[in-house]
Amino acid sequence: MDYQQQYQDLIHSATVFINGKDIPAHEASISVFDRGFLYGDSIYEVCYGLDGQLIFFQEHLERLYHSAELLAMQIHLSKNQIIDQIMGTLKHANLKNVYLRAVLTRGESIISLDPNTSFHNNFITIAKPLPTYPATYYQQGIHLHLTEVLRNNPKAVDPNAKSGNYLNNVMALEDAKKHKAVDAIMLNQAGEVTEGTTFNIWIVKDGVYITPPLKSGLLAGITRKNIISLAKAHNLKLKEEVIRPENLYAADEVFITSSTRKIIPVNRIKDKVYGESIKDWPCTEIMMAHYQTLIENQPREYQYL
Amino acid sequence: MDYQQQYQDLIHSATVFINGKDIPAHEASISVFDRGFLYGDSIYEVCYGLDGQLIFFQEHLERLYHSAELLAMQIHLSKNQIIDQIMGTLKHANLKNVYLRAVLTRGESIISLDPNTSFHNNFITIAKPLPTYPATYYQQGIHLHLTEVLRNNPKAVDPNAKSGNYLNNVMALEDAKKHKAVDAIMLNQAGEVTEGTTFNIWIVKDGVYITPPLKSGLLAGITRKNIISLAKAHNLKLKEEVIRPENLYAADEVFITSSTRKIIPVNRIKDKVYGESIKDWPCTEIMMAHYQTLIENQPREYQYL
Repeated sequence: MDYQQQYQDLIHSATVFINGKDIPAHEASISVFDRGFLYGDSIYEVCYGLDGQLIFFQEHLERLYHSAELLAMQIHLSKNQIIDQIMGTLKHANLKNVYLRAVLTRGESIISLDPNTSFHNNFITIAKPLPTYPATYYQQGIHLHLTEVLRNNPKAVDPNAKSGNYLNNVMALEDAKKHKAVDAIMLNQAGEVTEGTTFNIWIVKDGVYITPPLKSGLLAGITRKNIISLAKAHNLKLKEEVIRPENLYAADEVFITSSTRKIIPVNRIKDKVYGESIKDWPCTEIMMAHYQTLIENQPREYQYL
Repeated sequence: MDYQQQYQDLIHSATVFINGKDIPAHEASISVFDRGFLYGDSIYEVCYGLDGQLIFFQEHLERLYHSAELLAMQIHLSKNQIIDQIMGTLKHANLKNVYLRAVLTRGESIISLDPNTSFHNNFITIAKPLPTYPATYYQQGIHLHLTEVLRNNPKAVDPNAKSGNYLNNVMALEDAKKHKAVDAIMLNQAGEVTEGTTFNIWIVKDGVYITPPLKSGLLAGITRKNIISLAKAHNLKLKEEVIRPENLYAADEVFITSSTRKIIPVNRIKDKVYGESIKDWPCTEIMMAHYQTLIENQPREYQYL
């Protein structure tokens, strides 16, 4: 793959706003003294819009504030300023189906780790065409690797804060690629399944949907939360319960959830094969249908086009 | 403190080179698509120059390459390009005593965690006047906090790679400040002392210098290595041995080491007081003197002025 060309395409199609201002993507830059650059001292959210309206935006916004709280990051912008910049970016991008990344840093400071030396935020919003994932992912599932790269300990860097410290996940994905897998599942040091590099993980066993509890050390995914609600609404059995590798391998079905990827079935983890098409994963298929309906019936509260 | 003013002073006094080019510090910036910004996917070194020559530069350069190896980061620049940019930055800065930060990122990519999507590096060098630390630090010691923020697990993000993922340390320092301490010491999940937020830690017990072994999960500090050599050269007793909080509190002396701070004695950790002046810490004082002599006798291999 020519990633340099793909990058050029991205630069030509992306809209970037920094601190309220529209900046051409090829010039969109941040000071080398920004703490996001020097220390990964930033928080972010990725959400998306379909047919001119943001999906589950309120939840993403709330999580951004929750991440700030977990990292004791002061937000000097008002909530309206944040929403205005996001909506401005989306209006300017003028894309019916859009990917939005919003990054908030602790701003420039004096090259000191001390977060108290920062005095303003930098707020960067990037909009680009919503990526589509291969149809085969949804029909035939994906191959995941159970990596030996452990997920960060919540007592060190809390995975529940969506931050700019992503080397942990970068290394896990690198390991997955080395093993010819699409992506990786990570364990915590107690050997419990936590999450993927950028998604939550689910198993189905004897008709019960099971996902790891937040205390295993993972991000409280918004799709994850929606699925918990959907199960309740449709009287499906669901548990938040510790999952160990042996549970993973004994599962009838496995799937992942993320905002931009929605629900993708898993056909293989290491040597364990779960089947070869969505017909082999009836519970996954049912949830995919419920989730699709949920998206289609979202209130049009954050309409940008 | 007026950190905004301090930041302005920094911008006026700093020299920044990016990919070989001299850029005015107030304009020195990096693409918002740079992986260093998005994921903290970068490595760095901080070294310093005294009287126009870099100190222990060869060791810092080697460690930069070691960090790259640990993170499977390809370096597309030649070693000469790296050295040339650093020396160019220092010549331009024209400071007898200088602080140098060199940051190497995996470059811009397509907003994908996958490190294989990157196709070049960005190399940023920042020179500024070498900070001086208060004389009281060296004469009366500093107060450290033993934080409950655990150091990253080497199986998650290896502390031995000096990377742009520093939130772990940022949060530890934030905790120290909350407790009115100068800085923090971090434990691993087994309850072993690892290191400080940006320094190695040492205790002295019954005349023996003791520092945690690398396997406790810490950066192989260059000052740490030099002190190990100095102890050998001067027939001083030294051990790399697991240190637990109880050993810390039972120590006769405690000191920290870092490239820019050299050796600073510790007068207090939480409620434990070790004394009130350098006269109370004879072994620390001896090592400070040996280290000072070592610096003064460095070969003038990397002279920039």
